[in-house]
Amino acid sequence: MDKKISEKVINRLTLYHCILTDYIEQHIEYISSKQLAVLLKIDDSQVRKDISVLNNPGKSNVGYIVKELKSSIEKTLGFSKNKKAFIIGAGNLGMALAKYDNFQNYGLNILALFDNDKEKIGKVINNKMILDISKLPNLSRKTNVDIAILTVPRKYAQIMADYLVKANIKYIWNFTPTVLDVPENVQVWNENIMGNFLQFTYNI
Amino acid sequence: MDKKISEKVINRLTLYHCILTDYIEQHIEYISSKQLAVLLKIDDSQVRKDISVLNNPGKSNVGYIVKELKSSIEKTLGFSKNKKAFIIGAGNLGMALAKYDNFQNYGLNILALFDNDKEKIGKVINNKMILDISKLPNLSRKTNVDIAILTVPRKYAQIMADYLVKANIKYIWNFTPTVLDVPENVQVWNENIMGNFLQFTYNI
Repeated sequence: MDKKISEKVINRLTLYHCILTDYIEQHIEYISSKQLAVLLKIDDSQVRKDISVLNNPGKSNVGYIVKELKSSIEKTLGFSKNKKAFIIGAGNLGMALAKYDNFQNYGLNILALFDNDKEKIGKVINNKMILDISKLPNLSRKTNVDIAILTVPRKYAQIMADYLVKANIKYIWNFTPTVLDVPENVQVWNENIMGNFLQFTYNI
Repeated sequence: MDKKISEKVINRLTLYHCILTDYIEQHIEYISSKQLAVLLKIDDSQVRKDISVLNNPGKSNVGYIVKELKSSIEKTLGFSKNKKAFIIGAGNLGMALAKYDNFQNYGLNILALFDNDKEKIGKVINNKMILDISKLPNLSRKTNVDIAILTVPRKYAQIMADYLVKANIKYIWNFTPTVLDVPENVQVWNENIMGNFLQFTYNI
Protein backbone atom coordinates (compact mmCIF):
# COMPACT_ATOMS: atom_id res chain seq x y z
CA MET A 1 0.00 0.00 0.00
CA ASP A 2 1.64 3.18 -1.20
CA LYS A 3 -0.97 5.79 -0.36
CA LYS A 4 -2.09 6.65 3.14
CA ILE A 5 -5.86 6.11 3.24
CA SER A 6 -7.89 7.88 5.91
CA GLU A 7 -9.94 5.93 8.45
CA LYS A 8 -13.22 7.29 7.09
CA VAL A 9 -12.36 6.15 3.57
CA ILE A 10 -11.34 2.69 4.82
CA ASN A 11 -14.66 2.49 6.64
CA ARG A 12 -16.67 3.40 3.55
CA LEU A 13 -14.65 1.07 1.32
CA THR A 14 -15.57 -1.85 3.60
CA LEU A 15 -19.24 -0.85 3.33
CA TYR A 16 -18.95 -0.82 -0.49
CA HIS A 17 -17.39 -4.25 -0.09
CA CYS A 18 -20.49 -5.48 1.79
CA ILE A 19 -22.73 -4.19 -1.02
CA LEU A 20 -20.55 -5.80 -3.70
CA THR A 21 -20.68 -9.13 -1.86
CA ASP A 22 -24.49 -8.94 -1.98
CA TYR A 23 -24.44 -8.02 -5.68
CA ILE A 24 -22.24 -11.01 -6.50
CA GLU A 25 -24.67 -13.31 -4.69
CA GLN A 26 -27.46 -11.81 -6.78
CA HIS A 27 -25.38 -12.29 -9.97
CA ILE A 28 -25.36 -8.58 -10.75
CA GLU A 29 -22.33 -7.69 -12.84
CA TYR A 30 -22.18 -3.90 -12.81
CA ILE A 31 -22.71 -1.15 -10.26
CA SER A 32 -22.58 2.63 -10.55
CA SER A 33 -21.22 5.11 -8.04
CA LYS A 34 -24.79 6.44 -7.87
CA GLN A 35 -26.14 3.07 -6.70
CA LEU A 36 -23.50 2.83 -3.97
CA ALA A 37 -24.21 6.44 -2.96
CA VAL A 38 -27.99 5.89 -2.67
CA LEU A 39 -27.55 2.83 -0.45
CA LEU A 40 -25.21 4.68 1.90
CA LYS A 41 -27.14 7.96 1.67
CA ILE A 42 -24.02 9.88 0.69
CA ASP A 43 -23.07 11.93 -2.34
CA ASP A 44 -21.90 10.02 -5.40
CA SER A 45 -18.95 12.38 -5.87
CA GLN A 46 -17.78 11.06 -2.48
CA VAL A 47 -18.07 7.48 -3.74
CA ARG A 48 -16.04 8.30 -6.86
CA LYS A 49 -13.41 10.03 -4.74
CA ASP A 50 -13.13 7.00 -2.44
CA ILE A 51 -12.83 4.63 -5.38
CA SER A 52 -10.10 6.83 -6.89
CA VAL A 53 -7.68 5.59 -4.19
CA LEU A 54 -7.96 2.03 -5.58
CA ASN A 55 -5.84 0.46 -8.30
CA ASN A 56 -7.79 -1.06 -11.23
CA PRO A 57 -11.27 -0.55 -9.76
CA GLY A 58 -12.82 -2.13 -12.86
CA LYS A 59 -14.39 0.94 -14.44
CA SER A 60 -16.33 0.26 -17.66
CA ASN A 61 -18.80 2.20 -19.80
CA VAL A 62 -21.76 0.67 -17.98
CA GLY A 63 -20.43 1.15 -14.45
CA TYR A 64 -17.89 -0.60 -12.28
CA ILE A 65 -17.44 -4.32 -12.80
CA VAL A 66 -18.65 -5.71 -9.45
CA LYS A 67 -16.08 -8.49 -9.15
CA GLU A 68 -13.15 -6.28 -10.09
CA LEU A 69 -14.16 -3.47 -7.78
CA LYS A 70 -14.55 -5.95 -4.93
CA SER A 71 -11.16 -7.53 -5.52
CA SER A 72 -9.54 -4.12 -5.88
CA ILE A 73 -10.88 -3.09 -2.45
CA GLU A 74 -9.56 -6.35 -0.99
CA LYS A 75 -6.10 -5.78 -2.43
CA THR A 76 -5.91 -2.16 -1.36
CA LEU A 77 -7.08 -2.76 2.19
CA GLY A 78 -4.91 -5.84 2.61
CA PHE A 79 -7.66 -8.44 3.09
CA SER A 80 -5.24 -11.02 1.81
CA LYS A 81 -2.62 -10.26 4.45
CA ASN A 82 -3.24 -13.02 6.94
CA LYS A 83 -3.57 -11.63 10.46
CA LYS A 84 -3.69 -14.09 13.34
CA ALA A 85 -5.52 -13.31 16.55
CA PHE A 86 -6.71 -14.76 19.84
CA ILE A 87 -10.05 -14.05 21.48
CA ILE A 88 -9.71 -13.41 25.21
CA GLY A 89 -12.93 -14.31 27.02
CA ALA A 90 -15.30 -17.05 25.83
CA GLY A 91 -18.53 -15.35 26.93
CA ASN A 92 -21.38 -14.49 24.59
CA LEU A 93 -19.48 -11.78 22.79
CA GLY A 94 -16.32 -13.86 22.42
CA MET A 95 -18.44 -16.73 21.12
CA ALA A 96 -20.28 -14.45 18.68
CA LEU A 97 -16.97 -13.22 17.30
CA ALA A 98 -15.57 -16.78 17.12
CA LYS A 99 -18.60 -17.85 15.07
CA TYR A 100 -18.38 -14.89 12.73
CA ASP A 101 -17.16 -16.55 9.56
CA ASN A 102 -16.90 -13.26 7.77
CA PHE A 103 -13.59 -12.58 9.57
CA GLN A 104 -11.79 -15.08 7.39
CA ASN A 105 -12.79 -13.14 4.27
CA TYR A 106 -11.05 -10.11 5.72
CA GLY A 107 -7.83 -11.95 6.41
CA LEU A 108 -8.49 -12.31 10.13
CA ASN A 109 -7.65 -15.79 11.32
CA ILE A 110 -8.75 -16.51 14.87
CA LEU A 111 -6.61 -19.34 16.19
CA ALA A 112 -8.17 -19.92 19.60
CA LEU A 113 -10.19 -18.51 22.46
CA PHE A 114 -8.93 -18.20 26.03
CA ASP A 115 -10.84 -18.29 29.28
CA ASN A 116 -10.30 -19.28 32.91
CA ASP A 117 -13.60 -21.14 33.28
CA LYS A 118 -12.87 -24.86 33.65
CA GLU A 119 -16.30 -25.69 32.21
CA LYS A 120 -15.48 -23.93 28.96
CA ILE A 121 -11.84 -24.95 28.55
CA GLY A 122 -11.45 -27.76 26.01
CA LYS A 123 -14.64 -26.98 24.11
CA VAL A 124 -14.48 -26.21 20.41
CA ILE A 125 -16.34 -23.30 18.84
CA ASN A 126 -16.38 -23.07 15.06
CA ASN A 127 -13.17 -25.13 14.87
CA LYS A 128 -11.46 -22.95 17.45
CA MET A 129 -10.49 -24.40 20.81
CA ILE A 130 -11.13 -22.70 24.12
CA LEU A 131 -7.84 -22.85 26.01
CA ASP A 132 -6.73 -22.08 29.55
CA ILE A 133 -5.64 -18.46 29.74
CA SER A 134 -2.39 -19.55 31.41
CA LYS A 135 -1.37 -21.14 28.08
CA LEU A 136 -1.50 -17.83 26.22
CA PRO A 137 2.07 -16.53 26.71
CA ASN A 138 3.61 -19.75 25.47
CA LEU A 139 1.20 -20.11 22.56
CA SER A 140 1.46 -16.53 21.37
CA ARG A 141 5.23 -16.93 21.23
CA LYS A 142 4.99 -20.19 19.28
CA THR A 143 2.40 -18.94 16.79
CA ASN A 144 3.61 -15.33 16.50
CA VAL A 145 0.16 -14.04 17.32
CA ASP A 146 0.25 -10.39 18.31
CA ILE A 147 -3.43 -9.40 18.09
CA ALA A 148 -5.78 -10.05 21.03
CA ILE A 149 -9.53 -9.47 20.89
CA LEU A 150 -10.54 -8.56 24.42
CA THR A 151 -14.09 -9.52 25.42
CA VAL A 152 -13.76 -10.20 29.16
CA PRO A 153 -16.06 -8.60 31.75
CA ARG A 154 -15.23 -4.99 32.49
CA LYS A 155 -13.71 -5.64 35.93
CA TYR A 156 -11.04 -7.96 34.49
CA ALA A 157 -10.20 -5.79 31.49
CA GLN A 158 -7.13 -3.98 32.87
CA ILE A 159 -5.72 -7.07 34.64
CA MET A 160 -6.05 -9.00 31.41
CA ALA A 161 -4.52 -6.16 29.38
CA ASP A 162 -1.47 -6.21 31.70
CA TYR A 163 -1.23 -9.96 31.19
CA LEU A 164 -1.43 -9.59 27.40
CA VAL A 165 1.24 -6.90 27.37
CA LYS A 166 3.55 -9.18 29.37
CA ALA A 167 2.88 -11.93 26.82
CA ASN A 168 4.11 -9.59 24.08
CA ILE A 169 0.75 -8.88 22.50
CA LYS A 170 1.14 -5.69 20.48
CA TYR A 171 -2.44 -4.97 19.34
CA ILE A 172 -5.50 -5.12 21.56
CA TRP A 173 -8.93 -4.88 19.94
CA ASN A 174 -10.83 -3.79 23.03
CA PHE A 175 -14.54 -4.67 23.23
CA THR A 176 -14.76 -3.87 26.96
CA PRO A 177 -16.14 -0.51 28.11
CA THR A 178 -12.79 0.36 29.67
CA VAL A 179 -9.93 2.60 28.67
CA LEU A 180 -6.87 0.39 29.03
CA ASP A 181 -3.60 1.66 30.43
CA VAL A 182 -0.89 0.12 28.23
CA PRO A 183 2.71 1.02 27.29
CA GLU A 184 3.51 3.22 24.30
CA ASN A 185 4.44 0.29 22.04
CA VAL A 186 1.06 -1.42 22.41
CA GLN A 187 -1.84 -0.25 20.27
CA VAL A 188 -5.44 -0.37 21.42
CA TRP A 189 -8.51 0.02 19.25
CA ASN A 190 -11.51 0.82 21.43
CA GLU A 191 -14.65 -0.74 20.02
CA ASN A 192 -16.60 1.95 21.81
CA ILE A 193 -20.09 0.50 21.34
CA MET A 194 -21.85 2.91 23.69
CA GLY A 195 -20.06 5.86 22.14
CA ASN A 196 -21.40 4.76 18.78
CA PHE A 197 -24.88 4.37 20.17
CA LEU A 198 -24.80 7.86 21.65
CA GLN A 199 -23.60 9.31 18.35
CA PHE A 200 -26.42 7.49 16.60
CA THR A 201 -29.17 8.49 19.02
CA TYR A 202 -27.88 11.94 19.94
CA ASN A 203 -30.72 13.65 18.08
CA ILE A 204 -33.54 11.28 19.02
CA MET B 1 -28.57 20.22 24.15
CA ASP B 2 -27.91 23.57 22.54
CA LYS B 3 -24.58 23.02 20.85
CA LYS B 4 -23.96 20.62 18.01
CA ILE B 5 -21.23 18.24 19.16
CA SER B 6 -19.24 16.36 16.54
CA GLU B 7 -19.22 12.56 16.43
CA LYS B 8 -15.52 12.39 17.31
CA VAL B 9 -16.04 14.52 20.40
CA ILE B 10 -19.02 12.41 21.50
CA ASN B 11 -16.87 9.34 21.05
CA ARG B 12 -14.03 10.72 23.19
CA LEU B 13 -16.43 12.01 25.86
CA THR B 14 -17.78 8.48 26.30
CA LEU B 15 -14.21 7.20 26.68
CA TYR B 16 -13.56 9.85 29.37
CA HIS B 17 -16.77 8.59 30.96
CA CYS B 18 -15.36 5.04 31.08
CA ILE B 19 -12.22 6.33 32.81
CA LEU B 20 -14.24 8.38 35.30
CA THR B 21 -16.36 5.33 36.14
CA ASP B 22 -13.15 3.45 36.98
CA TYR B 23 -11.85 6.37 39.07
CA ILE B 24 -15.06 6.48 41.10
CA GLU B 25 -14.74 2.77 41.83
CA GLN B 26 -11.21 3.40 43.01
CA HIS B 27 -12.42 6.34 45.16
CA ILE B 28 -10.23 8.84 43.33
CA GLU B 29 -11.72 12.33 43.58
CA TYR B 30 -9.81 14.42 41.06
CA ILE B 31 -8.48 13.95 37.56
CA SER B 32 -6.46 16.23 35.30
CA SER B 33 -6.79 16.67 31.54
CA LYS B 34 -3.23 15.34 31.38
CA GLN B 35 -4.22 12.05 33.02
CA LEU B 36 -7.11 11.59 30.58
CA ALA B 37 -4.81 12.49 27.69
CA VAL B 38 -2.13 9.97 28.69
CA LEU B 39 -4.64 7.12 28.95
CA LEU B 40 -6.06 7.86 25.51
CA LYS B 41 -2.66 8.71 24.02
CA ILE B 42 -3.92 12.06 22.76
CA ASP B 43 -2.89 15.65 23.40
CA ASP B 44 -4.17 17.23 26.60
CA SER B 45 -5.19 20.39 24.74
CA GLN B 46 -7.62 18.13 22.87
CA VAL B 47 -9.03 16.88 26.17
CA ARG B 48 -9.52 20.43 27.45
CA LYS B 49 -11.20 21.43 24.19
CA ASP B 50 -13.59 18.44 24.41
CA ILE B 51 -14.45 19.26 28.01
CA SER B 52 -15.13 22.88 27.05
CA VAL B 53 -18.37 21.78 25.33
CA LEU B 54 -19.75 20.64 28.70
CA ASN B 55 -21.71 22.68 31.22
CA ASN B 56 -20.30 22.72 34.77
CA PRO B 57 -17.55 20.16 34.17
CA GLY B 58 -16.43 20.48 37.80
CA LYS B 59 -13.13 22.29 37.32
CA SER B 60 -11.20 22.96 40.55
CA ASN B 61 -7.66 24.03 41.40
CA VAL B 62 -6.51 20.44 41.75
CA GLY B 63 -8.12 19.12 38.58
CA TYR B 64 -11.62 18.16 37.55
CA ILE B 65 -13.88 16.75 40.24
CA VAL B 66 -14.41 13.19 38.99
CA LYS B 67 -18.08 12.89 39.99
CA GLU B 68 -19.03 16.27 38.57
CA LEU B 69 -17.22 15.75 35.30
CA LYS B 70 -18.90 12.36 34.93
CA SER B 71 -22.35 13.73 35.61
CA SER B 72 -21.75 16.67 33.28
CA ILE B 73 -20.88 14.28 30.43
CA GLU B 74 -24.03 12.30 31.18
CA LYS B 75 -26.19 15.40 31.06
CA THR B 76 -24.65 16.76 27.89
CA LEU B 77 -24.83 13.50 25.97
CA GLY B 78 -28.34 12.75 27.16
CA PHE B 79 -27.62 9.57 29.12
CA SER B 80 -30.70 10.32 31.17
CA LYS B 81 -33.01 10.44 28.15
CA ASN B 82 -34.55 7.01 28.27
CA LYS B 83 -34.35 5.31 24.88
CA LYS B 84 -36.23 2.05 24.43
CA ALA B 85 -35.07 -0.59 21.99
CA PHE B 86 -35.64 -4.14 20.82
CA ILE B 87 -32.92 -6.62 19.91
CA ILE B 88 -33.69 -8.51 16.71
CA GLY B 89 -31.98 -11.91 16.70
CA ALA B 90 -31.27 -13.90 19.88
CA GLY B 91 -28.01 -15.45 18.71
CA ASN B 92 -24.70 -15.02 20.52
CA LEU B 93 -24.35 -11.36 19.64
CA GLY B 94 -27.95 -10.53 20.53
CA MET B 95 -27.51 -12.39 23.83
CA ALA B 96 -24.23 -10.58 24.55
CA LEU B 97 -25.92 -7.23 24.00
CA ALA B 98 -28.93 -8.26 26.11
CA LYS B 99 -26.59 -9.16 28.97
CA TYR B 100 -24.63 -5.95 28.70
CA ASP B 101 -25.79 -4.11 31.82
CA ASN B 102 -23.81 -1.06 30.93
CA PHE B 103 -26.53 -0.07 28.43
CA GLN B 104 -28.84 0.99 31.24
CA ASN B 105 -26.26 3.51 32.47
CA TYR B 106 -26.37 5.14 29.07
CA GLY B 107 -30.14 5.46 29.00
CA LEU B 108 -30.64 2.49 26.70
CA ASN B 109 -33.46 0.31 27.89
CA ILE B 110 -33.80 -2.98 26.01
CA LEU B 111 -37.36 -4.19 26.41
CA ALA B 112 -37.20 -7.54 24.66
CA LEU B 113 -35.44 -9.74 22.11
CA PHE B 114 -37.10 -11.21 19.03
CA ASP B 115 -36.35 -14.39 17.16
CA ASN B 116 -38.15 -16.97 15.03
CA ASP B 117 -36.56 -20.00 16.71
CA LYS B 118 -39.25 -21.86 18.69
CA GLU B 119 -36.59 -23.21 21.06
CA LYS B 120 -35.56 -19.72 22.09
CA ILE B 121 -38.98 -18.03 22.22
CA GLY B 122 -40.23 -17.69 25.80
CA LYS B 123 -36.80 -17.78 27.40
CA VAL B 124 -35.67 -14.87 29.56
CA ILE B 125 -32.22 -13.29 29.25
CA ASN B 126 -31.21 -10.74 31.86
CA ASN B 127 -34.88 -9.99 32.60
CA LYS B 128 -35.67 -9.57 28.92
CA MET B 129 -38.01 -12.01 27.21
CA ILE B 130 -37.32 -13.58 23.82
CA LEU B 131 -40.51 -13.10 21.80
CA ASP B 132 -41.78 -14.37 18.49
CA ILE B 133 -40.76 -11.96 15.75
CA SER B 134 -44.36 -11.87 14.50
CA LYS B 135 -45.30 -10.01 17.70
CA LEU B 136 -42.97 -7.11 16.96
CA PRO B 137 -45.26 -4.79 14.93
CA ASN B 138 -47.98 -4.89 17.57
CA LEU B 139 -45.55 -4.50 20.48
CA SER B 140 -43.55 -1.68 18.95
CA ARG B 141 -46.81 0.24 18.47
CA LYS B 142 -47.92 -0.37 22.05
CA THR B 143 -44.58 0.51 23.63
CA ASN B 144 -43.54 3.29 21.23
CA VAL B 145 -40.22 1.60 20.60
CA ASP B 146 -38.56 2.94 17.49
CA ILE B 147 -34.99 1.64 17.86
CA ALA B 148 -34.10 -1.87 16.68
CA ILE B 149 -30.72 -3.50 17.27
CA LEU B 150 -30.22 -5.85 14.34
CA THR B 151 -28.08 -8.93 15.04
CA VAL B 152 -29.58 -11.54 12.68
CA PRO B 153 -27.43 -13.61 10.29
CA ARG B 154 -26.32 -11.68 7.23
CA LYS B 155 -28.68 -13.44 4.80
CA TYR B 156 -31.77 -12.32 6.74
CA ALA B 157 -30.60 -8.75 7.33
CA GLN B 158 -32.42 -7.01 4.46
CA ILE B 159 -35.62 -9.06 4.83
CA MET B 160 -35.68 -8.17 8.52
CA ALA B 161 -34.93 -4.51 7.80
CA ASP B 162 -37.94 -4.39 5.45
CA TYR B 163 -40.05 -5.95 8.20
CA LEU B 164 -38.82 -3.40 10.76
CA VAL B 165 -39.53 -0.50 8.43
CA LYS B 166 -43.08 -1.77 7.90
CA ALA B 167 -43.44 -1.95 11.70
CA ASN B 168 -42.56 1.75 11.90
CA ILE B 169 -39.09 1.32 13.37
CA LYS B 170 -37.21 4.56 12.69
CA TYR B 171 -33.68 3.74 13.86
CA ILE B 172 -31.78 0.57 13.04
CA TRP B 173 -28.51 -0.12 14.84
CA ASN B 174 -27.09 -2.54 12.33
CA PHE B 175 -24.61 -5.17 13.59
CA THR B 176 -24.85 -7.27 10.42
CA PRO B 177 -22.17 -6.93 7.72
CA THR B 178 -24.77 -5.67 5.26
CA VAL B 179 -25.64 -2.26 3.89
CA LEU B 180 -29.39 -2.04 4.36
CA ASP B 181 -31.66 -0.50 1.77
CA VAL B 182 -34.19 1.57 3.76
CA PRO B 183 -36.40 4.61 3.04
CA GLU B 184 -35.18 8.16 3.60
CA ASN B 185 -37.00 8.55 6.93
CA VAL B 186 -35.27 5.56 8.54
CA GLN B 187 -31.81 6.01 10.00
CA VAL B 188 -29.23 3.25 10.05
CA TRP B 189 -26.03 3.19 12.08
CA ASN B 190 -23.67 0.59 10.67
CA GLU B 191 -21.66 -1.04 13.42
CA ASN B 192 -19.03 -1.81 10.81
CA ILE B 193 -16.89 -4.18 12.89
CA MET B 194 -14.70 -5.38 10.04
CA GLY B 195 -14.20 -1.82 8.83
CA ASN B 196 -12.95 -0.93 12.29
CA PHE B 197 -10.66 -3.95 12.35
CA LEU B 198 -9.16 -3.00 8.99
CA GLN B 199 -8.60 0.56 10.18
CA PHE B 200 -6.88 -0.80 13.26
CA THR B 201 -4.70 -3.32 11.48
CA TYR B 202 -4.06 -1.38 8.28
CA ASN B 203 -0.43 -0.80 9.17
CA ILE B 204 0.36 -4.21 10.66
